[in-house]
Amino acid sequence: MKPRELSIEDCTALLSTSRYGRLALSLNDSPYVIPMSYVFSAGKIFLHSRGGGKKDEIASQNPRVCFEVDRMEKNQWSSVVVYGKASLSTDLKAKMRMFESFMGKDMKGHAGKQFSPEDLERMPMTVWEIEVLEMTGREGVW
Amino acid sequence: MKPRELSIEDCTALLSTSRYGRLALSLNDSPYVIPMSYVFSAGKIFLHSRGGGKKDEIASQNPRVCFEVDRMEKNQWSSVVVYGKASLSTDLKAKMRMFESFMGKDMKGHAGKQFSPEDLERMPMTVWEIEVLEMTGREGVW
Repeated sequence: MKPRELSIEDCTALLSTSRYGRLALSLNDSPYVIPMSYVFSAGKIFLHSRGGGKKDEIASQNPRVCFEVDRMEKNQWSSVVVYGKASLSTDLKAKMRMFESFMGKDMKGHAGKQFSPEDLERMPMTVWEIEVLEMTGREGVW
Repeated sequence: MKPRELSIEDCTALLSTSRYGRLALSLNDSPYVIPMSYVFSAGKIFLHSRGGGKKDEIASQNPRVCFEVDRMEKNQWSSVVVYGKASLSTDLKAKMRMFESFMGKDMKGHAGKQFSPEDLERMPMTVWEIEVLEMTGREGVW
């Protein structure tokens, strides 16, 4: 059966309710994809990394990203593909924006800990804010 | 907690037991990632597509791919990232190789139907055989 296109509302609903996606990057036309936890908040996708890894190196050279989220239920699948531009930051303000987004979603990550600005400042963390440039979604039966 | 590297044996085990992965491609350093069902058989990753879609167009111009498979169990995750080279074909022989791989895995796709060579020949399908060039895996706690 041919897949069906999802509406923007359905794409947004899937992005808003999932917790894990896959981030694709590219350098010299060599693609790279890894799983990442995320939050979709205020129209942006927030990720975080330890910094200094392969994904950080690639994104600092080529900020174009593709982020994919999917859901499988029995033989039904749906997926959203976002084309975006990543901004990486180690600023305290970016860390606070990210933590507020994660906390707002009650993600229960990091064992539910609360962090003070001082904790965040010390935390070796890179915040990724992905601006959504285009979004498509599909659903179908496997 | 810092993620731990997986051994080649663990990577192969995860690849062999999963049914869905995410395929990343790139054209002009613009990455693209989509979910795909697959089979890992005889050291290759087999996928199939209807042909003529965006992924087919990209891969025919740039065969470098990255294929990712992951597993989440409670707060434990593991993932394998494969760097490979895709060969696309609509040959009957390639279709037969792919169907044999899928059938060997008892995938129960396509409602468990059996197909004759005549059925396969008529089927509008592109077979993707991904040669594994490099493989890495990690596991950790979220």
